[in-house]
Amino acid sequence: MAETARFRHAIWRQVDPEAYERQGLSPTNRAVIWIVAVSSILAILETEPTVENMAPRVFAQLEWIFAVVFFLEYLVRLWAEGESPRFRGVQGRIRYALTLSAIVDLIAFLPTLLLPLLPGKSNFMLLRVFRLIRILRLARLGRFSLAMRHLSQAVTDRKEELLLSLMLATFVLVFSAAGMYVLEGENDPQTFGSIPRAMWWSVCTLTTVGYGDIYPHTVLGKILGGVTSIAGIGLIAMPTGILAAASSAAFQQTRLTRQGDTGWN
Amino acid sequence: MAETARFRHAIWRQVDPEAYERQGLSPTNRAVIWIVAVSSILAILETEPTVENMAPRVFAQLEWIFAVVFFLEYLVRLWAEGESPRFRGVQGRIRYALTLSAIVDLIAFLPTLLLPLLPGKSNFMLLRVFRLIRILRLARLGRFSLAMRHLSQAVTDRKEELLLSLMLATFVLVFSAAGMYVLEGENDPQTFGSIPRAMWWSVCTLTTVGYGDIYPHTVLGKILGGVTSIAGIGLIAMPTGILAAASSAAFQQTRLTRQGDTGWN
Amino acid sequence: MAETARFRHAIWRQVDPEAYERQGLSPTNRAVIWIVAVSSILAILETEPTVENMAPRVFAQLEWIFAVVFFLEYLVRLWAEGESPRFRGVQGRIRYALTLSAIVDLIAFLPTLLLPLLPGKSNFMLLRVFRLIRILRLARLGRFSLAMRHLSQAVTDRKEELLLSLMLATFVLVFSAAGMYVLEGENDPQTFGSIPRAMWWSVCTLTTVGYGDIYPHTVLGKILGGVTSIAGIGLIAMPTGILAAASSAAFQQTRLTRQGDTGWN
Amino acid sequence: MAETARFRHAIWRQVDPEAYERQGLSPTNRAVIWIVAVSSILAILETEPTVENMAPRVFAQLEWIFAVVFFLEYLVRLWAEGESPRFRGVQGRIRYALTLSAIVDLIAFLPTLLLPLLPGKSNFMLLRVFRLIRILRLARLGRFSLAMRHLSQAVTDRKEELLLSLMLATFVLVFSAAGMYVLEGENDPQTFGSIPRAMWWSVCTLTTVGYGDIYPHTVLGKILGGVTSIAGIGLIAMPTGILAAASSAAFQQTRLTRQGDTGWN
Repeated sequence: MAETARFRHAIWRQVDPEAYERQGLSPTNRAVIWIVAVSSILAILETEPTVENMAPRVFAQLEWIFAVVFFLEYLVRLWAEGESPRFRGVQGRIRYALTLSAIVDLIAFLPTLLLPLLPGKSNFMLLRVFRLIRILRLARLGRFSLAMRHLSQAVTDRKEELLLSLMLATFVLVFSAAGMYVLEGENDPQTFGSIPRAMWWSVCTLTTVGYGDIYPHTVLGKILGGVTSIAGIGLIAMPTGILAAASSAAFQQTRLTRQGDTGWN
Repeated sequence: MAETARFRHAIWRQVDPEAYERQGLSPTNRAVIWIVAVSSILAILETEPTVENMAPRVFAQLEWIFAVVFFLEYLVRLWAEGESPRFRGVQGRIRYALTLSAIVDLIAFLPTLLLPLLPGKSNFMLLRVFRLIRILRLARLGRFSLAMRHLSQAVTDRKEELLLSLMLATFVLVFSAAGMYVLEGENDPQTFGSIPRAMWWSVCTLTTVGYGDIYPHTVLGKILGGVTSIAGIGLIAMPTGILAAASSAAFQQTRLTRQGDTGWN
Repeated sequence: MAETARFRHAIWRQVDPEAYERQGLSPTNRAVIWIVAVSSILAILETEPTVENMAPRVFAQLEWIFAVVFFLEYLVRLWAEGESPRFRGVQGRIRYALTLSAIVDLIAFLPTLLLPLLPGKSNFMLLRVFRLIRILRLARLGRFSLAMRHLSQAVTDRKEELLLSLMLATFVLVFSAAGMYVLEGENDPQTFGSIPRAMWWSVCTLTTVGYGDIYPHTVLGKILGGVTSIAGIGLIAMPTGILAAASSAAFQQTRLTRQGDTGWN
Repeated sequence: MAETARFRHAIWRQVDPEAYERQGLSPTNRAVIWIVAVSSILAILETEPTVENMAPRVFAQLEWIFAVVFFLEYLVRLWAEGESPRFRGVQGRIRYALTLSAIVDLIAFLPTLLLPLLPGKSNFMLLRVFRLIRILRLARLGRFSLAMRHLSQAVTDRKEELLLSLMLATFVLVFSAAGMYVLEGENDPQTFGSIPRAMWWSVCTLTTVGYGDIYPHTVLGKILGGVTSIAGIGLIAMPTGILAAASSAAFQQTRLTRQGDTGWN
């Protein structure tokens, strides 16, 4: 029985990125990253009819193989995580299965395995949502990135400032849309006939995307449009400044942490 | 009478964000924020005919209820602010009623209460402006945000620098419009036939919005357009730098102030 | 004669921004700024036929009055600058007349005064260029701005870095245009049939203006377009960083200089 | 023989930018920069039929002259680099010929010299690729720029951070495209009918280019489009911050290095 325990410990060190004894990722997790990437690219390409029609059965079979691989990987992780103090025993396993990482892992293969059981496979919308879910596999990569965890920490630290600039952006968005509704609503009811409609124009202008499907035609509307565009630069500048400072601080911290790691390893 | 005074003091601590004894906002002000947000969202949705026609009477009644609530809140604030040394007595109340916050509060409900008294309710433009005013309620949220007051302070500190970059932007705007008027005015009088007309193109290009309703057609015009686009990046970069530095400084100051608050609280 | 000298000295202190004894600008120069601004706005509005046709004679007369005022101001400055050690005597006056500021001042009124002497006043292009010159009056404001002189100094200091990022931008511009010429030139010779033609698309894409008059249609062209757009963000980020650092440094220096001024004044 | 060695040493000091004894570039390399620039501009202009048809033979002859000049320059560099300890002897010359700089130099003239030997000169695509290669001459300028080498070092230092933000951008790109495929794919199969197709819209929106050839039409699609545009600002802000910090650090280092150079020269 000690041999099983030692074997499980070795497996655990391979599959849990935080349990791996050396720097970086274990060979197993490197392989998982490649499988996730390839399977996601296939799931993206498969939605394009001209590509899928070249070899529809190959895509279906590959998808099935990937789902089985992810299923087995899920079982191995569930079994091996018993080595972690937090997830010991049956109760610990249930607790593990309810972590965000494990749920994302489950979603990555479950729909493919359950699809044959569904009656209305021909449902168009359902098929699309199901394909979208498969691409969510990409989110599995998040667990492997140390820098990403540090970065999301940094964004969380500046949550309040970012929320304030988002709130300011919402104010300008609503008021420019309301102004356009007052100025151009009568002439152009299809696009500026209500504030929610005018907000499509506002968001395109404030983010400086400017598709050009909607733009003001009256002189007053153009003046408001110009002021909104210029305000948009200010609204881009504020989160840019905050995120720039936050990301720069986050990377400095990452570097310090890493130097610390190198120190006592 | 002492009981009334104690009651008014308790109410004042609830309604004035600066008089609240703990950190953050009082439960009353939290409730006001939610009511303002919900009433603004309703005012925005109501402008959309497809939404309003689903239940026109419900919207009208809800609007009436919100206006009455804001009216009562206004009276309570006016009465309770007597606790503040600045606004004691009848003269103090008049001084309070003339503060920006109180005027914004008044505008938030007065138009709704006065609308039935107006004769020409069917006036289209008037109705639109009236709806715009109701959305100004969102501006009431400004009084509750400590960070916003700090930020506006920071922008005021750098007023001169921001004005200079606005002035430079105006120069480039006018000269690129004038150049386009000279180069393309003859070919395309509708859009480049005068400098004010060409400024619509200039502002769309310098802010990199680029709707695509107007663009140069001649070779010289395209060269000027390219130079203008590249100048636009410089003009975006300057206020971005200033605002980034200003907002970063402002948030540092906010943090210091808050730490100071925590220190002696 | 001493009275004339004292009078000239007083006038010189009024008209030369650097000779004014107090901080800020002299009342005379404040008035000049307003006259320049009003005359420029009139020159801009005059190009719009719907505005000019309202009162064509008023515009022509105002323009004439402004030109005479600027002419007199020019003579006064020329006479008063004799107080400055650099511009003493006849030779000094000639040296003053050849400074950039004096030439800009001359251009601000000369065309208006010379226009009646020209034979072919009806020439359309000439009239437009002449109007453009009148708007160059705005450049006169540059001499009054201390911050502008500091800023242009800062940009000059980082000249090399900005040139490098401009050079890099030119590289990406040329290579993306050349790539599009190879990929889409055959299908769309009108817009991508040569590298100079494709550069119009490149500049619109790299600066993220994106008018939408030209865009790739083939799959390979769209991939190159996407890569170019993403490269554009990098090319915007680089000068933004340099200009942000430069302007922030420049404003710090301005503040220090001003504090120094306050110190010994 | 000593004279030949001294001559070769003098030539080497002229052609190798790092061997030149004074600051800046040698007169020879300055001349080379000008020849590269002029020849590249000619290669760009030549692709425009209206320009080339003005003097097709002149363009062909100039191109031939430039290729011969670059060929001779290549031979001189190959011969003179024997002075460098790294590239001594025949083996050293082969090592030199395999450096990136030497290969770029070779590509700059070889296609022109080999073109007459090719049988199918009339091949359209081949001619275009050949012209593209000639513009690659611009890349030769890279070897002369000290700042460029420092900058590319700085970007390499922050490789990891830039890769992470590129990865995040890819995530948002894929998910917004997948969302649009689910929401608008049925209505608009031509543009949103598959995830790869929808990615063209995503990249145009996230980079805020916004050509306007594709945009969402349904309400849900417009909401997703608005969220994507706003996410785009965040994705622009992150690399801007990183690149700004990197370039600012790089230029500081350049300045320090240069001061150090001045110190011991």
